[in-house]
Amino acid sequence: MSQLWSKLVHKLEPYVPGEQPKITNLIKLNTNENPYGPSPKVLDALKTEAADTLRLYPDPNSDQLKQTIADYYSVEPKQVFVGNGSDEVLAHAFQALLKHDKPILYPDITYSFYPVYCGLYQIEYETIPLADDFTINIENYKKPNGGIIFPNPNAPTGVGLALEAIKQLLDNNTDSVVIVDEAYIDFGGETAISLVDQYPNLLVIQTLSKSRSLAGLRLGFAIGNEQLIAGLERVKNSFNSYPIDRFASTGAIAAFEDEEYFQTTKQQILNTRAKLITGLESLGFEVLPSQANFVFARHPSKDAISISQSLRDKGIIVRHFAKPRIDQFIRITIGTKAECEALIKCLSSI
Amino acid sequence: MSQLWSKLVHKLEPYVPGEQPKITNLIKLNTNENPYGPSPKVLDALKTEAADTLRLYPDPNSDQLKQTIADYYSVEPKQVFVGNGSDEVLAHAFQALLKHDKPILYPDITYSFYPVYCGLYQIEYETIPLADDFTINIENYKKPNGGIIFPNPNAPTGVGLALEAIKQLLDNNTDSVVIVDEAYIDFGGETAISLVDQYPNLLVIQTLSKSRSLAGLRLGFAIGNEQLIAGLERVKNSFNSYPIDRFASTGAIAAFEDEEYFQTTKQQILNTRAKLITGLESLGFEVLPSQANFVFARHPSKDAISISQSLRDKGIIVRHFAKPRIDQFIRITIGTKAECEALIKCLSSI
Repeated sequence: MSQLWSKLVHKLEPYVPGEQPKITNLIKLNTNENPYGPSPKVLDALKTEAADTLRLYPDPNSDQLKQTIADYYSVEPKQVFVGNGSDEVLAHAFQALLKHDKPILYPDITYSFYPVYCGLYQIEYETIPLADDFTINIENYKKPNGGIIFPNPNAPTGVGLALEAIKQLLDNNTDSVVIVDEAYIDFGGETAISLVDQYPNLLVIQTLSKSRSLAGLRLGFAIGNEQLIAGLERVKNSFNSYPIDRFASTGAIAAFEDEEYFQTTKQQILNTRAKLITGLESLGFEVLPSQANFVFARHPSKDAISISQSLRDKGIIVRHFAKPRIDQFIRITIGTKAECEALIKCLSSI
Repeated sequence: MSQLWSKLVHKLEPYVPGEQPKITNLIKLNTNENPYGPSPKVLDALKTEAADTLRLYPDPNSDQLKQTIADYYSVEPKQVFVGNGSDEVLAHAFQALLKHDKPILYPDITYSFYPVYCGLYQIEYETIPLADDFTINIENYKKPNGGIIFPNPNAPTGVGLALEAIKQLLDNNTDSVVIVDEAYIDFGGETAISLVDQYPNLLVIQTLSKSRSLAGLRLGFAIGNEQLIAGLERVKNSFNSYPIDRFASTGAIAAFEDEEYFQTTKQQILNTRAKLITGLESLGFEVLPSQANFVFARHPSKDAISISQSLRDKGIIVRHFAKPRIDQFIRITIGTKAECEALIKCLSSI
């Protein structure tokens, strides 16, 4: 039957997301979800959308949402693109902005969806090794390319890149698009959005799934020069006119409007992260410096797969990546204080 | 700046959806939305989703939703694919199943997103003229092709194709995928889902935007042989792991569970359509036989653009397509009884 598939489909190697278990009572620290629910104001706003107006299409251009995001980040609405989760935004960006004659560049250890997008859109790529301490060395990106993309902080390491380094990378690389994938930026990094007016080839992508507790709602966005956004809009409008449903738009707007809740929950996560790192280190783990809502840690003598499995047996899920250089690490999402204490207790007993 | 766009982006001619006006008090009969809101049971279910669990990703595979759709149509869950509106399902189907060496075939008058998808995925196509009465003549599809797609009933004509004719087309065309786009099937046509076990190259696509009053929620689906669905899943999982948010999944499940509401509102629309057709004919309009929640009508002496404009001036929006063969038609969505009476009254005065 597969002769009915397009040639491309045979070659795809789809992305495998972290497990979303259907059993409850697990401590779920594997997909970097926020341990706190969305703002009560977001929930109230969402309830009002459960109404007769659902019979009507949403605004295909999501103008109100773009205005809200633009106001929040002090940019113009025409500098804002929105999508059904930041994965969709990334997909459109690969197709619209990163497919050129030369290969694109990204770190050897990074978000594992990037090579999948390259497969989908048949984009050549070259991976640039991280330094031994898992930092990005921007000097290594000084070569002809069809575009550059990296997460900041990087995934799954959590290691951040300073804004000054990003600025230097942009100064070195003016002829192709540079995408900074800031899914985790709110947990301690410094956003590159402040640079978009200065660098017309810079695109910054963020999500509401992590710091704004809305993974279940699917909303991501990009901010950049209006010409880059126009390119994304051309692809989006050739793919799906109405990707943002009425709930996603309303929930996202309300989330940006409740700054206090955002700051409070973020601070709680940062506090818990500090305690978790101390606890892991006291058990002998090496923990990479994290600017994210997760930590990436390895034990000098215990095997990562066996740690993961032992935790799983006791009802705690973390994530392991069977990849070169990082196969001895486990990635642990910052949960509630109680969840992280349970994790440390469990690790002590292993 | 546009040198930063991929080559493809320059060539795209994006789809232009029907206007979604931001002013109220208009009688909106231009985008085939349902005049009745979703079932109250759907609204109740949606309200329960506005909860702390939004911090968690939805099920990436939408298993419960697929099971519900499979049960409703008496197929297996592995024969069901779901997407963020049927436009996304169509997009993935073009990329996964219709991109081959030979051109695909579709009617010269049809859903105007098809050529846009062909542009996005660089698929060659050949249009097959409808007969003079705007019906599809399946004899004209007997030629080598990379796939066949058509809406049933067709858009924007509303004219249906009998299941027996689709069966013959499938008997004539066994080597490429045949996609029947059934966005409007519930308003009087007969679905081809009953044929999917017999024809492994048949894919049927439907939406909850029209007959189930959920345009604002974005949910479409495809049913076909499990190998076709597997091809779609490969593309979906290379594009976006979590396209269906928690509201879309829950709302869609509840919609399929309230059969009584579905049947009642559908019947009201069919009753109103019959009255609207009588009214239009009494004003001298020629109305194509409709199996959809809209009618396609032309007046022997009044110009379609001027009718549209006159209606717009009086607060009623219908849709006009400036395309060969159909530029003298207006497409009118079946609204409430009162809306359709207002339309007839307004047309009488023009």
